[in-house]
Formats: sequence, C-alpha cells, structure tokens
Amino acid sequence: MSRTIGVIGLGHVGITTSFNILTKGLADTLVIFDTKAGLAEAESYDLRDALGGLNTYTEVLYNDYAALKEADVVIFAAGDISAILGGDRNSEIKTSKLAVDQVSPQLNASGFHGVLIDISNPCDVITTYWQEKLNLPKTQIFGTGTALDTYRMRRSVADTLDVNVDDVRGFSIGEHGETQFPAWSTVRVNNQPILEMDGIDYDGLSEAARLGGWKIFNEKHYTAYGIATIATELALAVCSDAKRVFPVTCFDEDYGFCIGHPAVVGRKGILSNPPMTLTDDEKQKYAKTAQSIKDTYDKLKALD
Amino acid sequence: MSRTIGVIGLGHVGITTSFNILTKGLADTLVIFDTKAGLAEAESYDLRDALGGLNTYTEVLYNDYAALKEADVVIFAAGDISAILGGDRNSEIKTSKLAVDQVSPQLNASGFHGVLIDISNPCDVITTYWQEKLNLPKTQIFGTGTALDTYRMRRSVADTLDVNVDDVRGFSIGEHGETQFPAWSTVRVNNQPILEMDGIDYDGLSEAARLGGWKIFNEKHYTAYGIATIATELALAVCSDAKRVFPVTCFDEDYGFCIGHPAVVGRKGILSNPPMTLTDDEKQKYAKTAQSIKDTYDKLKALD
Amino acid sequence: MSRTIGVIGLGHVGITTSFNILTKGLADTLVIFDTKAGLAEAESYDLRDALGGLNTYTEVLYNDYAALKEADVVIFAAGDISAILGGDRNSEIKTSKLAVDQVSPQLNASGFHGVLIDISNPCDVITTYWQEKLNLPKTQIFGTGTALDTYRMRRSVADTLDVNVDDVRGFSIGEHGETQFPAWSTVRVNNQPILEMDGIDYDGLSEAARLGGWKIFNEKHYTAYGIATIATELALAVCSDAKRVFPVTCFDEDYGFCIGHPAVVGRKGILSNPPMTLTDDEKQKYAKTAQSIKDTYDKLKALD
Amino acid sequence: MSRTIGVIGLGHVGITTSFNILTKGLADTLVIFDTKAGLAEAESYDLRDALGGLNTYTEVLYNDYAALKEADVVIFAAGDISAILGGDRNSEIKTSKLAVDQVSPQLNASGFHGVLIDISNPCDVITTYWQEKLNLPKTQIFGTGTALDTYRMRRSVADTLDVNVDDVRGFSIGEHGETQFPAWSTVRVNNQPILEMDGIDYDGLSEAARLGGWKIFNEKHYTAYGIATIATELALAVCSDAKRVFPVTCFDEDYGFCIGHPAVVGRKGILSNPPMTLTDDEKQKYAKTAQSIKDTYDKLKALD
Repeated sequence: MSRTIGVIGLGHVGITTSFNILTKGLADTLVIFDTKAGLAEAESYDLRDALGGLNTYTEVLYNDYAALKEADVVIFAAGDISAILGGDRNSEIKTSKLAVDQVSPQLNASGFHGVLIDISNPCDVITTYWQEKLNLPKTQIFGTGTALDTYRMRRSVADTLDVNVDDVRGFSIGEHGETQFPAWSTVRVNNQPILEMDGIDYDGLSEAARLGGWKIFNEKHYTAYGIATIATELALAVCSDAKRVFPVTCFDEDYGFCIGHPAVVGRKGILSNPPMTLTDDEKQKYAKTAQSIKDTYDKLKALD
Repeated sequence: MSRTIGVIGLGHVGITTSFNILTKGLADTLVIFDTKAGLAEAESYDLRDALGGLNTYTEVLYNDYAALKEADVVIFAAGDISAILGGDRNSEIKTSKLAVDQVSPQLNASGFHGVLIDISNPCDVITTYWQEKLNLPKTQIFGTGTALDTYRMRRSVADTLDVNVDDVRGFSIGEHGETQFPAWSTVRVNNQPILEMDGIDYDGLSEAARLGGWKIFNEKHYTAYGIATIATELALAVCSDAKRVFPVTCFDEDYGFCIGHPAVVGRKGILSNPPMTLTDDEKQKYAKTAQSIKDTYDKLKALD
Repeated sequence: MSRTIGVIGLGHVGITTSFNILTKGLADTLVIFDTKAGLAEAESYDLRDALGGLNTYTEVLYNDYAALKEADVVIFAAGDISAILGGDRNSEIKTSKLAVDQVSPQLNASGFHGVLIDISNPCDVITTYWQEKLNLPKTQIFGTGTALDTYRMRRSVADTLDVNVDDVRGFSIGEHGETQFPAWSTVRVNNQPILEMDGIDYDGLSEAARLGGWKIFNEKHYTAYGIATIATELALAVCSDAKRVFPVTCFDEDYGFCIGHPAVVGRKGILSNPPMTLTDDEKQKYAKTAQSIKDTYDKLKALD
Repeated sequence: MSRTIGVIGLGHVGITTSFNILTKGLADTLVIFDTKAGLAEAESYDLRDALGGLNTYTEVLYNDYAALKEADVVIFAAGDISAILGGDRNSEIKTSKLAVDQVSPQLNASGFHGVLIDISNPCDVITTYWQEKLNLPKTQIFGTGTALDTYRMRRSVADTLDVNVDDVRGFSIGEHGETQFPAWSTVRVNNQPILEMDGIDYDGLSEAARLGGWKIFNEKHYTAYGIATIATELALAVCSDAKRVFPVTCFDEDYGFCIGHPAVVGRKGILSNPPMTLTDDEKQKYAKTAQSIKDTYDKLKALD
C-alpha cells in the first residue's frame, strides 16, 4: 500500500517539512492543512510546481481530513511562533492548545490510526495533551522534542572537535526548552566516550548547543531546516518500521507525561525505550527538566 | 575535484535553494551570502543543524568570496520581493541592480570563473546586466527565466488533462513576467502535440499557468519551491555537464539581450540554443515579449 | 501503509533490480524469491549487508509468499538467460513457462492483488501467459517489453547527436526481440521531431539500438543495469500512482495478446493506452512484430 | 570542479560499485577499466542504458587513463575471486599483484593525484603493495579492509537483538580475512556498550559476522552489495571531505604495513587515526591478525 503523510500547520516548519518530504519522494500522497484555506491551496501549488524537476511523484492534497484515514504519519506543526517574540511563552501554549482542540476531533473522526508526530511547542506538553485528546494508544503519539537539541549538540561538538556529525553519537534529553541538557555520559566522538577526552569544555558545548536555536531565531525569527530534517527522518522511520533510536518526547511512565528521552521508533510509533544509564548529576538534571515540563503542563491545564 | 556552489541572497528563494542543494547532497561545499552578516551566519547554523539527519556531507561557509574561486556555480537570488507588494515594480529593478553593482566587483575579484545563474527579478534584465558587469563570457551567465513559467504550464496542463507532469513537454518562453507565454506548438502531452488534441482551452491553460505564481504570491507573499527546484536542477546540469535543454533566459543574438528560450545547459553554461520552430503567432508574441524586456532594460539603464 | 515489493527469480536481472530498489529506499519491505532456497537466503544477506551504509531502512525477506498478500508490486525475473547462449530460443520459452506454471498458483494462493511486472523473456508472450494464469485483471499485469529497447534507442540517439538522453523522447515498440523498432514518428530530440532533422541515419540508429543489447550480452552474457533501472522506475510508478507513460508490453485489444506500446502506468497497473499516431510504414512494422509475438505465443501454447 | 571517479576491474564487485555510483549520481564522470577491452565497452553501454531512468547525469568513459588526471578517487577492484574456489589463496595474491604491477605505471603516468581505494584481496597486503608502487603519499591509499566485516558484524548484531543497524556502532578490525575480529569493547547497541548487556553470545555473533561472507560466497560465488555500498560511501567521503570514521585498512605505523583499523577519511584520504582503546585480549588478537597479514605480505614479496 502507498505511503500517506499528513502535515498540519503550514508555518515555516510545517511547509519546509512538507517540501522536504516531497522532494525526497518519501510519500505517495502528501496532505497539507492550514486554517487559512487559501494558504493551504497556495502552498499545494508551490509544492506541485516542484514536480517538474523531480523523478518521483507525490500527490499533494490540502485540507482533506478524509484522506488521512489510512495515513501512516501525521505531523502536527501548528502554532504561532511569533508568540515567543512577544516574550510571553504562555501565549504559545494557548495557541498550540487551541490548535489541538480544533484539530483532534477532526483527526479522530477521520479514522486516522497511524502515528502522530508533534512539532508544536511547548513540545513535551503539547504531545502529552495530544495523548489525552486522540483515540490512539499513547505509543502512537510522540513529539520531536530533544531530537533537535541533539542535532545541535552533535553539530556543536562536531564543529569544535573537527569531526563528522555522524561520528558524534548520544543524546540531549529533557524538555525541548531551556532546561534540556546533553547527557554527556551517552556521548561518543569517533567512538570514544567524550567524558574520557581531554580538554573538553562541556559547559561551552552545552551552551553552544542550547544557544544554537536562539542564534538562528534571533536573526530569522524561526528555525526550519534542522527541525524539518528530523521530522522527515522520523516519518520515514515510522513508514519503514526502522526501529531506530531517536531522543523524542514520549510518555515517561515514571513521571506520567512526555519527556524527551531515547526511544525506538517504528511503524507502531514508540516501540520501546532503551534503558538510560545516566550519572547521578544527569538524573538530577532530568528530574529538574521534568519539573519544568510539569509546570508548563499545569499552565496548559489551567487554561481549561 | 569537489563541487562548490555559491548562493548569494538569502531571502526565501535563496535559502530554500540552499537547503535543497544541501539535503540532496549536490555540493561538497556550499557558500551562502547575505548583506546581513548575522543572517548569513544564522542560516549556516540552521542548514548545518540538518546534517545530523543526512548521509551526505556538505561544508557550509558564509560570506566568503574567496571560497568561490573554484566554484562551479553561483546562484544569485538577491533582491527584495516585497517591492512588488508596494505595486512599484521599478523599485525591484533598483534593488536588484544595486545588488549586482555591489556583488559583481567582489565576484570578479574572487577569481570566480564558473557559471552564474540569476534568479533575481526582473530576471531577463538583471541577467543581461550581469553579462555586462562580470568578467565572464556571456554564455557562462544565464537566468532561470521562463523555466519556472514552464514548470507551471506543465503542472497546469498535467492537472487539467490528468497526466504526469513529466509527460508534458515543451516550453513557455519570453519575459519572466506578464508577457511570457506557452509556445503551444512545442508542447506535447503523452507524446502527442497538444495542438492536435480535442477540447483544449489554451487560453484557460495559459491563464492558469500565468496566474499560478500570483495565486501563491498573494497568499504567502513569495514563491519558493518551484523556483528552488529549478535552480537546483540547473546547478546540477552545470556541475555534471548534462547538456540538458531548459527554457532559461540567455543572450538572444537577434535582440542583443537576454530572453527566455530553450538552451542546452552544461559545464560551460549555455552550450547552444536549439532552433525554435514557432508559429507566426508565437513569433509575434515573442517579439512583443522581447519589447517588454527591452522597456524594462531601458528603465534599468536610466537608473545610472 | 508501507510499500512492499516482491522480486521473483534472482538471476542477474532480478538481484540487480532488488539491490536498486533497496539502495534507493523505495520499499519498506522487499521479498525476494528463488527456487534455490540457499541462494535466496544468501542474497538476502548480501543485500542486508548494504544496510550499514544506507539512511533508509528496508526489511528483506526471502521465499515468503504470505508476505505478498498486501504487496504493491511483484517483479517476475525468473528464467534462464543462458538458454539463449545455446542458440535455441525455444528453450527459454520452456524455462519461463515452467516458472510461471510453478509460481502462479502460489501467487494466487497468497492473496496478492497488486501489480505484476514481467521481465522474463520472451517478455510479450510470458506477460500474455501471466494474464491467463493469475487471478487478476489483465490491466494489473504488464511486462517491461520495449521499455528497455526505448532506453537503448534514446541512448543511441543521444550519443550520436550529443544531446542529453532526457531530451530524447519517444518510443520503440513491438516485440521485445528482433522485430522491435523505434517509431521515429514519435521521437523528438531537444523537442524537435527527429523526422524533420537533417542528416539522420535512421537505419544506423535503429541498428545501434537493436544491437545495443547484443553488444552487452556477447561480452558479459547478460544485461542488467538498463533493465533493472526500468523495472525500478515502473515499480515506483505503480506505488506512487504516477500515471506516467512507458512503452511496456500490455494487452492490445486489437490483437488479443500483449505487445509493447505506450501505456499510462499507475497504482492499478495499466490505466489506459494513449493513442498512437503511427505512419503507414510503422503500422506495417507493428503488424509484423505482432505476428512475430503470435508465432512465439503459439510455440508456448504448443508446449502444453 | 566536477567529481571524477575511476573503477578499475569490472568483476562483480567493480561493476556493482560502478552502477551504484552511477545510479546515486555521485560522479559527474565515471571511468571504468578492464583488461578485457570489449567487456569495459559493453559495461559502459549497460551502465549508460540506465541513464534513461535517472535524473542525474554521469559521463561514462572506459579504459581511459588520461581521464584520471584530475580524478578524486580511483577504486581498484581487479583480481580473480574464482581463485578462492580452487582453494589456493596464493593464486589470488598472484593475480592481484600482477594487476597492480600492470596498472600502477599507467596510474602514475596519468598524473592521478587523488585517493586510491583498494578492494582487491588480500586487501591489507595489496593496499600495502599499492603504497609501494604509486607516486602518492601513503595517506592517499587505503583499502576497504574490515569495513565490510564491520557491516556484517553490525548486521549480525542488529538481527540478533532486533535493533536498527544504524544503532549498532563499533568496529571489526584486523585482516580482511579469517583473523579479523569484532572489537567488542568498541561496540554499542542503542548507545549502550554491548559488553554491559546481558545474555550476549559474543562467539556466536563473531562467528555469524565472520561466516556471513562465506554463506553468501558459497551460494553465489561472490559477494557484491555490501562491498559496493561501502566503496561508494568511502568514495563520497573523499569527494566531500567528510572526515567520517571508517574501519579501513591503512598504514599502521607500529607495524609498518596496512591493517584494518578506524581512520578518519576525507579529501586527502586518511586524515588521522583516532586512538583505539582496546582491551588486552583485543590487543593480542590485533597482534595476531597483524602477523597473519605479515605472513601473506611475505608471500607476495616472495613472488618477485
């Protein structure tokens, strides 16, 4: 059967992800959605203008929930990032929650039974909220979470040590936000534990990774290419049942909500969570970042 | 030797093209430029954040003209499309001309001797102007021109007749602007001449193709995916000496400036122009669209 | 739902096609088959050894008909090409027919209801035979036929005229064998009708195209890369419902058996056949090549 | 400048590698070589027959040493694997050495100054011999070595533990032959050290990895897809200066000849060797496998 992928919310992240999926030929049918119907239609034209230069073929539909009935993956990228510009992060919670409230009944009604991947922020909290609103097992709902922070940590380490990013392995975990942190005990560079390497400025690398997004954001007011690449990788991992490990935000049984930590991703979403062997310091940081997510989650619930 | 591609001007088109080149692994080194140095740096971070999910490797540099000395291709995408929003197309001429005036001495000084592809509008006129300013043979300078209009015409025909866009062949030619037109005598659908098919609404198809860009533009205030795909295809055609035919804007000996018409694109840029066998009506339209380009060119020269 | 592709028969063509599908990441599940069970297992290992260097994931199964129940495409590449070496083409008919006789009950029993693409020779006759043996509409069964001859004709023209093969359009049609011929009236080079170009040696080009395969065959005793590429393209066209036109061997209503001629290929196999506007001479050649297929078909039926 | 890759020796491995490079669009020019000139020409036709289905363009030349002057990479895949069938591994030494003796003067004369990657067996010894015969720094000459054994070890572990092969990291090292071994201390599965996991049958995994090639070889009498994929990855790493770590056979300063061990691969070949932190047992095995290479090397020198 053909691969069908939906992308809901056509801000910079959603549409860049859509383009990436199209141009890599990953989906046989791509269904894009936006509350601005004219924009969704316009983007479908811009995407389809690209078909003349591809040797793959993707059907592009828009604002068609019925087409999601047999979809493999739906990527949720709604939300107004400009809320951050105003300095009130709560306004983003409101916007994203409202979007989930609007979209979830339609997704449920469509008969969609694939995997939902949340990009919208605050990612951990919104993913948790999705798990409450959607008629799907929690394992079929996860968010990009610290996968992006991990990319940035890896890029930051690769730059500093002049190695290839593919040879920097390991994870940033926790909240996709200020309290995320690289779990250095998991990081290897050219297959050596970074904790055993000389002259590493861990605080500097953490800061570079953490600030990476802000540096981009401050100049262009959004970030798109890292996150679009991750979302595409995750969608492919689901479609092909790849069983690959990504640090995504998914349900943490100990805490009762979603936190970014390594998970095995396949056709059924989160297949399992490999054990983390964190240091005591990392465990403390994890508890702290979990609390930060909890605080935000409480704010979301207070909106009801 | 490695492939090096430069992209100058990081508006939506320039940066989307850069991302497309990166994610397809076409360049070993990608050099991006913007007059806003902070933005160029930020975009280099956003692009490099994607490396964690690719299995190709691309070095991303920014604002480094020296790195263009051995570059295969430079794509020029500068210019302020928002000028169009104000309704004064002349303001776009000024902006683009100014950008060429600023960039061309640096390109000349860099020792760049590859192929320059102009995306900036008004494309035909700016490409002509590049040919005056750069120390390169005219054949090593061309613009995307009606390649985008051709994609849109093909998409429009493919939609209407329910065929694959790859099976719609032929060209839109002339000015990349209001006076461009599909040369229907060149168009074949599923290998049949469209002029011999029944029930074709040529005016409707022309209008749909012409309005395609505006429909996108009116909603999102820019168009990106079609043009980025074309620019990527053209860059690859140069790097691999593909000798493929594209309707790009290049020097027309009869008129003495650049007009969109079919050209063989390879390592040295425009290798030749295959003969066009237009109908009399199409020849008239071509003369008319050429005059429109000439008028705009005169406006540009009047700016000096 | 995921893409599943089966390949039956792991001679050079079958296994090269399998590798191409794997390395391009087109299938989520690839099921390979061979009567030599040890070989099928061995090839599954060799293919999976490649996974370490890919960024896509494909499950590789072998000799598992049950896995074809929801398959999109099955490619049939069985048959002993060495039969040709002995000079007795009939021995290939026997081998291929026997393979169909053995495989078809298992395919029927599996519940397979996708599209079967035959590569086995004599391709037109074996494809016709498949249509008799399989519980599927005739439109869901076709063969690569003159798609390979068309590639060779295009390559031959591209070489001779120094143009890109993508800019040589048109079809070779008829029997995938000695009587196939380029329908020059359908061929365009850089969008010009080849029949209107000066100095073309049509007989030489036809001969070069016809002899292309023999030249390869005489040296390496099989041909693999052209045919594997076509089979992969066709499989993708089915999976993505591309509605692209290929000259494949499919049922010709006028003749009552399969002949290589242009067809629109999509999810349901052959969606339609665009009208051919052949010259009188080409029509005669088509009748002659059809008769050649009929003669071979009669030989196959005489084997019962 | 364009990417040029040469492949010398068109047995199964050489030609499969060539096809993989072609179909992935990695080279702008591909130059293939075989002592059987007719075969080289025939393969160039078979490869170019595939161009009709690709959207990249690669020029395919054959037996043209002059075209290697600016080549980025030359892959050496000559040698008669059928020698192994006879049970006399020495005959393969003779064949491969003779091939180096014949090819090296022509490569030197061509002005080639890129990176040579040896696939021919016995890989460690022949790579060492190449370093003696070619006018290039030793760092620009390496062999695929235990990169293939590593792929097989990773595949074996991935199969057994039901994880994705990308999440099995680490290296098999030593001779590309019977004495190679997985350095388990380097291996991590889903980012956990395999040595800390319960219930692992290391001997079984080692044996499965070691026997992987033989299982394939015994059935099909060669192995192609794993090795072709590695060679392609390595060629790309050189072209794009990827600085990625691969376990390839390269000069070991301690021993004075080439042994398979992790190396950073980039444009200049071997850029460095990251430190190995082997266990005492692994160090002993490394010494033993080095001795085995030395013994074979002595046999090669005795042929003079």
